[in-house]
Amino acid sequence: MARIIIVNGPNLNLLGSRETDHYGTVSLDQINSDLTELAQQLGLEVSFFQSNSEGSLIDYIHREASKADGMIINPGALTHYSYALRDAITAVNIPSIEVHLSNIHAREEFRSKSVIAPTVDGQIAGLGSYGYALALSFFADKFNKE
Amino acid sequence: MARIIIVNGPNLNLLGSRETDHYGTVSLDQINSDLTELAQQLGLEVSFFQSNSEGSLIDYIHREASKADGMIINPGALTHYSYALRDAITAVNIPSIEVHLSNIHAREEFRSKSVIAPTVDGQIAGLGSYGYALALSFFADKFNKE
Amino acid sequence: MARIIIVNGPNLNLLGSRETDHYGTVSLDQINSDLTELAQQLGLEVSFFQSNSEGSLIDYIHREASKADGMIINPGALTHYSYALRDAITAVNIPSIEVHLSNIHAREEFRSKSVIAPTVDGQIAGLGSYGYALALSFFADKFNKE
Amino acid sequence: MARIIIVNGPNLNLLGSRETDHYGTVSLDQINSDLTELAQQLGLEVSFFQSNSEGSLIDYIHREASKADGMIINPGALTHYSYALRDAITAVNIPSIEVHLSNIHAREEFRSKSVIAPTVDGQIAGLGSYGYALALSFFADKFNKE
Amino acid sequence: MARIIIVNGPNLNLLGSRETDHYGTVSLDQINSDLTELAQQLGLEVSFFQSNSEGSLIDYIHREASKADGMIINPGALTHYSYALRDAITAVNIPSIEVHLSNIHAREEFRSKSVIAPTVDGQIAGLGSYGYALALSFFADKFNKE
Amino acid sequence: MARIIIVNGPNLNLLGSRETDHYGTVSLDQINSDLTELAQQLGLEVSFFQSNSEGSLIDYIHREASKADGMIINPGALTHYSYALRDAITAVNIPSIEVHLSNIHAREEFRSKSVIAPTVDGQIAGLGSYGYALALSFFADKFNKE
Amino acid sequence: MARIIIVNGPNLNLLGSRETDHYGTVSLDQINSDLTELAQQLGLEVSFFQSNSEGSLIDYIHREASKADGMIINPGALTHYSYALRDAITAVNIPSIEVHLSNIHAREEFRSKSVIAPTVDGQIAGLGSYGYALALSFFADKFNKE
Amino acid sequence: MARIIIVNGPNLNLLGSRETDHYGTVSLDQINSDLTELAQQLGLEVSFFQSNSEGSLIDYIHREASKADGMIINPGALTHYSYALRDAITAVNIPSIEVHLSNIHAREEFRSKSVIAPTVDGQIAGLGSYGYALALSFFADKFNKE
Amino acid sequence: MARIIIVNGPNLNLLGSRETDHYGTVSLDQINSDLTELAQQLGLEVSFFQSNSEGSLIDYIHREASKADGMIINPGALTHYSYALRDAITAVNIPSIEVHLSNIHAREEFRSKSVIAPTVDGQIAGLGSYGYALALSFFADKFNKE
Amino acid sequence: MARIIIVNGPNLNLLGSRETDHYGTVSLDQINSDLTELAQQLGLEVSFFQSNSEGSLIDYIHREASKADGMIINPGALTHYSYALRDAITAVNIPSIEVHLSNIHAREEFRSKSVIAPTVDGQIAGLGSYGYALALSFFADKFNKE
Amino acid sequence: MARIIIVNGPNLNLLGSRETDHYGTVSLDQINSDLTELAQQLGLEVSFFQSNSEGSLIDYIHREASKADGMIINPGALTHYSYALRDAITAVNIPSIEVHLSNIHAREEFRSKSVIAPTVDGQIAGLGSYGYALALSFFADKFNKE
Amino acid sequence: MARIIIVNGPNLNLLGSRETDHYGTVSLDQINSDLTELAQQLGLEVSFFQSNSEGSLIDYIHREASKADGMIINPGALTHYSYALRDAITAVNIPSIEVHLSNIHAREEFRSKSVIAPTVDGQIAGLGSYGYALALSFFADKFNKE
Repeated sequence: MARIIIVNGPNLNLLGSRETDHYGTVSLDQINSDLTELAQQLGLEVSFFQSNSEGSLIDYIHREASKADGMIINPGALTHYSYALRDAITAVNIPSIEVHLSNIHAREEFRSKSVIAPTVDGQIAGLGSYGYALALSFFADKFNKE
Repeated sequence: MARIIIVNGPNLNLLGSRETDHYGTVSLDQINSDLTELAQQLGLEVSFFQSNSEGSLIDYIHREASKADGMIINPGALTHYSYALRDAITAVNIPSIEVHLSNIHAREEFRSKSVIAPTVDGQIAGLGSYGYALALSFFADKFNKE
Repeated sequence: MARIIIVNGPNLNLLGSRETDHYGTVSLDQINSDLTELAQQLGLEVSFFQSNSEGSLIDYIHREASKADGMIINPGALTHYSYALRDAITAVNIPSIEVHLSNIHAREEFRSKSVIAPTVDGQIAGLGSYGYALALSFFADKFNKE
Repeated sequence: MARIIIVNGPNLNLLGSRETDHYGTVSLDQINSDLTELAQQLGLEVSFFQSNSEGSLIDYIHREASKADGMIINPGALTHYSYALRDAITAVNIPSIEVHLSNIHAREEFRSKSVIAPTVDGQIAGLGSYGYALALSFFADKFNKE
Repeated sequence: MARIIIVNGPNLNLLGSRETDHYGTVSLDQINSDLTELAQQLGLEVSFFQSNSEGSLIDYIHREASKADGMIINPGALTHYSYALRDAITAVNIPSIEVHLSNIHAREEFRSKSVIAPTVDGQIAGLGSYGYALALSFFADKFNKE
Repeated sequence: MARIIIVNGPNLNLLGSRETDHYGTVSLDQINSDLTELAQQLGLEVSFFQSNSEGSLIDYIHREASKADGMIINPGALTHYSYALRDAITAVNIPSIEVHLSNIHAREEFRSKSVIAPTVDGQIAGLGSYGYALALSFFADKFNKE
Repeated sequence: MARIIIVNGPNLNLLGSRETDHYGTVSLDQINSDLTELAQQLGLEVSFFQSNSEGSLIDYIHREASKADGMIINPGALTHYSYALRDAITAVNIPSIEVHLSNIHAREEFRSKSVIAPTVDGQIAGLGSYGYALALSFFADKFNKE
Repeated sequence: MARIIIVNGPNLNLLGSRETDHYGTVSLDQINSDLTELAQQLGLEVSFFQSNSEGSLIDYIHREASKADGMIINPGALTHYSYALRDAITAVNIPSIEVHLSNIHAREEFRSKSVIAPTVDGQIAGLGSYGYALALSFFADKFNKE
Repeated sequence: MARIIIVNGPNLNLLGSRETDHYGTVSLDQINSDLTELAQQLGLEVSFFQSNSEGSLIDYIHREASKADGMIINPGALTHYSYALRDAITAVNIPSIEVHLSNIHAREEFRSKSVIAPTVDGQIAGLGSYGYALALSFFADKFNKE
Repeated sequence: MARIIIVNGPNLNLLGSRETDHYGTVSLDQINSDLTELAQQLGLEVSFFQSNSEGSLIDYIHREASKADGMIINPGALTHYSYALRDAITAVNIPSIEVHLSNIHAREEFRSKSVIAPTVDGQIAGLGSYGYALALSFFADKFNKE
Repeated sequence: MARIIIVNGPNLNLLGSRETDHYGTVSLDQINSDLTELAQQLGLEVSFFQSNSEGSLIDYIHREASKADGMIINPGALTHYSYALRDAITAVNIPSIEVHLSNIHAREEFRSKSVIAPTVDGQIAGLGSYGYALALSFFADKFNKE
Repeated sequence: MARIIIVNGPNLNLLGSRETDHYGTVSLDQINSDLTELAQQLGLEVSFFQSNSEGSLIDYIHREASKADGMIINPGALTHYSYALRDAITAVNIPSIEVHLSNIHAREEFRSKSVIAPTVDGQIAGLGSYGYALALSFFADKFNKE
């Protein structure tokens, strides 16, 4: 059974309780719980990690990526400057999808640039927490075909 | 039954026969046929349109959007400069998702900027023709909930 | 009797029905009808053309400008990138006024730059549909004096 | 009877005697005299002010705008850098039209940027001294309708 | 016998009658007629197409390029922004030469940048209508050698 | 007793009556009256000056700075371009604090750049009219210590 | 009694012992001790936190801000690139003041840009460690009034 | 006898007493007195004007230039942004030389750009107050030759 | 008989032996020999010069251009920065064509900018050593017509 | 005996196992072991530290630099944005050399800019793991001479 | 007797015979002859050097500057990019004045930037060949005073 | 025995006698003499070349590189603009190391950009003349291993 790691960066632990017009009212725990259920239906195994620290995110990716078949990552605001996170993703070299809850292209100018994007396979943005589900579906489709 | 229009811009009629390393080997007809089937499963009605002409794309959106509940659009290279297409999408004001087959952020610099993005609800890029399917799933989920 | 062509670009066919806070509630037909009346009072002959296609706009200008004494043009969003339209206006070389319904300088950054502007004689922006009437008055004054 | 103030900035006192290829051969006094006559026909009251000093222009606007219904302003070269003049116009908050005699978009690069434009309602450029008359007509139309 | 398609973009139908200081006094028909004659001498077959519409140019290239051995293209002002035309040329993937009548590097700043150039094999600029003839000679030499 | 000059630039005479969401409802006279009282408590002498004219502000600074121990200056919109005011402050070389009522970094882009800032000792922004009081406290602390 | 958290970012633990020409000779402990005393006089409760780690700063703000009435933050060099810290401040949404010991506008170019500034209420820069005291006074004034 | 006006802008009244490392220790009065003497030797008549106000400088130039044969101008910091002063110099259209005491190219970046320079005949920078004398010599040579 | 000088800049002496994928396998001697033969057929006299030194190229152009009717120049990498070479070409003022072996627009960014281009009559790029032959044909055609 | 600290940033723990074409096949442990041996020969004492966390790197530098005579640092991707790391190096103020395994100037654009470089004494880039050895030699030479 | 070297860069050997509208009709020999005469009157010794080669200019400056008291240099187009020439001037460290015949600020954009300017003492531009004479006068005045 | 050429560009002949704070007090002859000695110890043969002329440097590299196994080059200020030198290095294609005596990243902005860097294998900067020795050690290590 293919294994997918789902990684969330800074401030995503606050989901559901703050800035709900941008990010919705569902908590990260609820999202993860829904994704666990969906993964079971799709025949995938999922693991979750969230940290506000760039270093911890890199440590996690180094340690877990070699045991995983795919990664879904929402780097939060690290999206816009963390070349170190980008290098970590490049290094582990597994299929990866970048997810953003809000449409990063319709907000402040700096949010439209992702330094992570050139190293992942694809991105899904602006579709709320449903974006994680779509990314999971993509991996299910991908690993079923293979 | 919710109705979704799926709009493809310049050069996407060549899908499957040219630059297959960037865009895959499946033709647009095959993609559309697969999407029709998926739409039936999801309880959605779909219509397709492709044109190499910016003017025809705008005409189509003006005419059909008022009869549709959602739009999936791959603007091709118009993504990078067609403010006229952007204004058309803003004007008709229906839920819209921008889809790109390739990861536009990992290619030439000019491809990483979308003038369409700020006016759509979300984007899916780099997941090949499966991106259209994900966008359709999103709409199915959205309209089922309502 | 001097003849003026009045050319409208992409999305202006939607006037009055969409984004009415930016563009007002009067339809293009109504505007044109008012302008026809005003032209009669001013002793001018007017012709109207609207298209969402850059190519059709250029074709029209090539064909009609040689039979006209002046042009009023609202290029819509082509204002910001259509060097081809600009070259067409330069080529036909008749007195021309660029009109914008909204104040393009008080909206998104990209709207404040017009690639058409350097080739026309003058511009009127932000005065709503009354801008067309002012442009017509200008031509009446100009051709009466001559 | 609606009252319109007509404000001219630096160097416009030289109109008619210098750089006549850019600005025409009519003096500012002659223009103002013509505008007074036109205002009478249109049922408007007009007042004129010209200064080469940014501070005096701001003082005038502060003092007179509260007694006026509209403002026509040609800021001269202050157009391109006087954020102080812009703030004055924003503060007094009456309907305002920016007028330029020449087509500022067809001259040196720096002239195509107006820091005043985002705070006025509309602009008229490149139509010579007739631009003031058109602005006056706009106000007449506006206040007659109300 | 090798077949070459010769494609001209917006406003080139006006050649010979307008802006003759930039583009010379010879009409496009005359140029094409001369090129037909030259092609015969060189043992090449030529076809011509001109359109003011980006979409029609792309349609033509899609349809005809697979039957041709080489393309000579003067994209007119589309040179400076039509990424869609560029993608069409990339997609059909036949030997291509970009021709400009005037020296685009000695005119306005925006004309010195070609978005088409990176996808063609070479360019000839500033040599008037003789540029087409040189491009034809290049293809004759190329296909004779092979 | 240390003497502090408090200098306000263009449009600050309108405080309290205009754009009250940005600048509050207290008038400049009221602010100055409060500051006079505070100064007495702090053992400082204060003088006030406001002008809409860059030249008058420079004249005032030249004349009064040599008799003062410190300066509090809110340059209004001159903040963003008046290198002449900057040079005046550099020339008189007394301890100076730049005060802005609103948070200039959270408004239009051009407001986030201060050409005055590199020549003053410090800045206080976004704390409303209380910013002047804080600046005064700073000087009281500074001169008490010496 | 209102509670204020005072947060210091990278390298501020070195205060008083290094680069004393930029940052003064007083240690962070001494500053904090002085602020505790001042807070008592002003009727405020204060808590202190310093970390060299962006992630720890975000964790602290998430955890403590909901129990606090205001925040004083000196983000150190994170000021110039930490969009993650900015998002944390935006998320917790309590009154916040950014403090810098030195005048960041009079040093290297990169120091004049703060990505934190648009999300706080105000800033105080260049007034040395006295800046923290002024920020505290501001909060005292604010909460006394309410 | 040819008449030369010598115009000095903001802060130059402080010459000799402030920032003497950049601008020397000689006062403007002393400079003017030396120039008067030199002018007599060279057979030229000179008039002097200094103001800290852009508006007054423009007024002076308008009024005096028509009676003068040449102008020497040190615009002070207005050099870097006063397009209004530039337009005044363009308008009066007499031979003009821009003088700077210090080498503006070896100081802050913003000082290396002069908006005045494109409209004058020549510039002399970095040669201290002797620059005015050289400019006067140039005019003497010029008018003697004619 | 018209005389054409053919000038090659830095590194072109290595043609045929190095970086053959960019520049082909033919040596400069062979190219010149072929061009001599072609020139005879076309009724032109040709002279050749190559140097790795900017100064020698300028010396040659100064000395020989007055005796020549046209110049073909491949400035090598001097294309991108040698304003001195540009000024030399401008000064001698004879018909000139810039030739590049490779398509400079499809390589590194810096190669797409030519400081020489604005001063020559035309350019030929990307057609290999055949570009020199085409330039020669152009001159033959030009001088035959005259 | 002089003591040198050798600090490695994010992702350098993966050396030898990933992206071996850029970074070689030798592990960080092996490199450190070789450097220990070399240090003994050179009469230097060495300590090693690696972390993926910016905060931990800064903590380490604060704590250890005062006990060290020199630092060799490879900041990994933090090189390109970590002004906090830069400030830490500036603060501790010991002789420092920046080492990069690959030639950062021949890769992506963003890698050619180092925000660390202005604060170190020198850099060695592109010489693989041998760069650390050269840096060590430099310190040996430096401390032997003193 | 003070000794001044007068150095002229690329293309200045053509003075008087080419582009006479920019550079006048006097030859460099004539200018030098006039300067020799003037130098005698001023009590200065002068030497002249002109080369089209950057390397030769640097060699000359290295060799002659140590024997000279001042340098007058017109670097021609090397002004805009020759950091090597700039470094040579910095290295020899004698009083230097940069002279340009034309007003480099009123021509093409690239001519308004001098990389030489920050290292010389002053500049004279736009005053024709008289600029050399003024520079010589400056040195005479300087060395007479000392 | 491997042969290394050591190439120094403009102004490096002045080493030891000028700007000694940037470049040290050791002459180039002394450095070369030390390097000859070191080379002998390392079993390498070395040749030296210095020129102030870009053309001569390119000539030397063309001629000597084919007989050498490695190159050490300090291009002086040509580092920042000589694409011709870069192309020469690319063409000869031997292992090359760029050396700078000073830390080019801690000086003027323009010095931090090297156009040479992308074509060499590595760089050493800021370590004084010891940088040449380190580069030599690198080659010794490299050729010993092979």
